[in-house]
Amino acid sequence: MSHIIDTPKPPYYAVIFTSLKIDRDEGYAKMSDRMVELVSEQDGFLGFESAREELGITVSYWVDESSILKWKANLEHIAAQKAGKETWYKQYKIRIAKVERDYEYTKE
Amino acid sequence: MSHIIDTPKPPYYAVIFTSLKIDRDEGYAKMSDRMVELVSEQDGFLGFESAREELGITVSYWVDESSILKWKANLEHIAAQKAGKETWYKQYKIRIAKVERDYEYTKE
Repeated sequence: MSHIIDTPKPPYYAVIFTSLKIDRDEGYAKMSDRMVELVSEQDGFLGFESAREELGITVSYWVDESSILKWKANLEHIAAQKAGKETWYKQYKIRIAKVERDYEYTKE
Repeated sequence: MSHIIDTPKPPYYAVIFTSLKIDRDEGYAKMSDRMVELVSEQDGFLGFESAREELGITVSYWVDESSILKWKANLEHIAAQKAGKETWYKQYKIRIAKVERDYEYTKE
């Protein structure tokens, strides 16, 4: 992706998802596209930023923690989490964090 | 980079630095290497995770907020921030967040 997400004035929440994939990649793009589509429909979802070299980092932003818990419990998402463990991910870590302040710079 | 950082039991802090660079890259790697060296010496620094495609995401982890403020005020870091605005970055956003919980998965 190629842009920095607009987020509201803090506080809001960030979910930092860091992952290492195995070499096999079958079906990953399709699942990933579907999850982007699905997460975008969730209440309280603000957007996400993502980049991958060897390590992949996806940060999604949320209005509050209950929105994150609802997304975690979404049935189709649960199936994707299970498939992720079985098929694509060697290791991942998820950190749920409350954004307390932010600032930005844009070249004129 | 190629590994997920070990962090202590929450709470701890994350600084999410998302950036878009301009095409010109002169001196960036040198500055970046020096900042990695310098940040690693800071009190309260726990490690960082980083990936860049078009968008770059670097998440650094810290024991507490005062450690983050001290790093922000480091003179050599301030000079690098200034050079970053003048030379390398088209846009960036920095979010300071308190990690409240985390969990991880490692394939056996």
